[in-house]
Amino acid sequence: MKISENEYQVLWVEQGKIKFIDQRKLPLSFEVFTAETVNDVAFAIKEMVIRGAPAIGAAAAYGMALGSQDPDASAKILLAARPTAHDLFYAVDYMKEKIKHGDDPHSEAEKYVNDIIDRCRRIGEHGAKLIKNKMNILTHCNAGALATVDYGTALAPFRVAKKQGKTFFVFADETRPRLQGALTAWELQQEEIPYAVIADNAAGHFMKKGEIDLVITGADRIANNGDAANKIGTYEKAVLARENNIPFYIAAPVSTIDFSIKSGDEIVIEERDRKEISEICGQKILGDDVPVRNPAFDVTPHCYITGFITEEGIKKKISGSG
Amino acid sequence: MKISENEYQVLWVEQGKIKFIDQRKLPLSFEVFTAETVNDVAFAIKEMVIRGAPAIGAAAAYGMALGSQDPDASAKILLAARPTAHDLFYAVDYMKEKIKHGDDPHSEAEKYVNDIIDRCRRIGEHGAKLIKNKMNILTHCNAGALATVDYGTALAPFRVAKKQGKTFFVFADETRPRLQGALTAWELQQEEIPYAVIADNAAGHFMKKGEIDLVITGADRIANNGDAANKIGTYEKAVLARENNIPFYIAAPVSTIDFSIKSGDEIVIEERDRKEISEICGQKILGDDVPVRNPAFDVTPHCYITGFITEEGIKKKISGSG
Repeated sequence: MKISENEYQVLWVEQGKIKFIDQRKLPLSFEVFTAETVNDVAFAIKEMVIRGAPAIGAAAAYGMALGSQDPDASAKILLAARPTAHDLFYAVDYMKEKIKHGDDPHSEAEKYVNDIIDRCRRIGEHGAKLIKNKMNILTHCNAGALATVDYGTALAPFRVAKKQGKTFFVFADETRPRLQGALTAWELQQEEIPYAVIADNAAGHFMKKGEIDLVITGADRIANNGDAANKIGTYEKAVLARENNIPFYIAAPVSTIDFSIKSGDEIVIEERDRKEISEICGQKILGDDVPVRNPAFDVTPHCYITGFITEEGIKKKISGSG
Repeated sequence: MKISENEYQVLWVEQGKIKFIDQRKLPLSFEVFTAETVNDVAFAIKEMVIRGAPAIGAAAAYGMALGSQDPDASAKILLAARPTAHDLFYAVDYMKEKIKHGDDPHSEAEKYVNDIIDRCRRIGEHGAKLIKNKMNILTHCNAGALATVDYGTALAPFRVAKKQGKTFFVFADETRPRLQGALTAWELQQEEIPYAVIADNAAGHFMKKGEIDLVITGADRIANNGDAANKIGTYEKAVLARENNIPFYIAAPVSTIDFSIKSGDEIVIEERDRKEISEICGQKILGDDVPVRNPAFDVTPHCYITGFITEEGIKKKISGSG
């Protein structure tokens, strides 16, 4: 990811310490957080210095390398940081295994992280084929380098297409309640890709006016039939895309597909803290007695999804979908 | 409108002065603004002490009564307050005419304002027929008493249904960028109607889950074929309602229909200040160099509108629509 003309990853190793782009400070300020111990890494995960499932996995892998002298204790500390993050479990288990087999923990962590980056780069290469000159493309939430170490998933095709010299424009939904569109804006700005942030309410209007040619979003979990859970609002944009004959793609690594669930109906949607609706950046916008409903995700049925951009290529179907 | 157990209008006359519920302070605080002169009324309109087309018209009518000793000068002061407000022109002209014909300006203003309230009350009575016990109803933006002196348009059926003893639940879209959902929440709270505020992104999710049975919104302008311009995001919710087989109604007085325009294609959509997206209640959420697109309204084609709730009854069609 380009930041002020330099190439960065969301986290990296420097003289035995783990450095993180501090996402608590973005987009208004760029700061680097340094972790010297497993506890520092756990703090970074817990306090959302780092966010996004693949990036959390990467942090955990590096954290296990830092704490490799006592892998069981390190695992315990890291797993307590975000008790529901699937990639965290996976990375910690992977590293524990490697350490117990006597492999070098630092090079194994590096391999784990490079594999994530490589998958995202390949998602970018496949997805870039969909991007034609002068296209206007909508994205929702932040499925960018900031969530995945580098490249991102939904944003990876933009980065590759830009490097290929294509000219295109991105509409970034601001993505209430947590406003991850601001992070997408920040990444696009760094990559010098022309864009504008819009209210989530405006996406349909621009589609109807013919100002959007393609939609690409990420996914948190894809069911066996192709139904995709992603940030709240994704379903709305997918329905509007189909209504306006605009292709709607999900970009995600194959590891996002959960073959154990038949359809999106099995995915439980978590409702989050009311403060995400009643306050914005600490500024109160609703009284304390105002009731709120705040689902964090929604499920987009596969019939609205034109295709899936994965590291293995663009798939029209996930096993039984379509 | 009920506020802390007392009945209020958005503005009223008290001992020759005009009192306004100060909407700059809502929903976090309830204060009354007092206008003693035409200039005070112009200030209230300009600074959005009062908002909503019908309510602005009512303020102008009272303002003309306050300044009836020099109707031409008073008209000039009021018209300069919001140079694009149709109801402002209409009310000022209406009052100028009455004053010139020697009618009593105070009782004419009262008549003008009571006529607005009466139309809204009748919208409420017709619309309440659509509301059945245990329904969950979605509304977008604030088409309530605060925008229309009393009752509101989209919110009028809720108030009447509540008085009829019906039990139902309202989902209020927060309505980015200007968050008028907070005003809707405040009105529903006062009327003791159960509700929750949701992110605009969550409306589709609740529709798909079967948690929404009916949608009612207001409109700013309705074309001859029934296409309706309203707050940005209305089109999105209308498309999602049809996709989920949920009736979608527009509540508006007949005066909102502009028979001079054939279809919504003729309605020009204004883009507003970038700060509405980049800041929330003075809190900066995007950097100063972040590009923004900010359409204030969208147009919902008549094919998505189940019917129009007017003071004359519920119409399936506006002249040539359907």
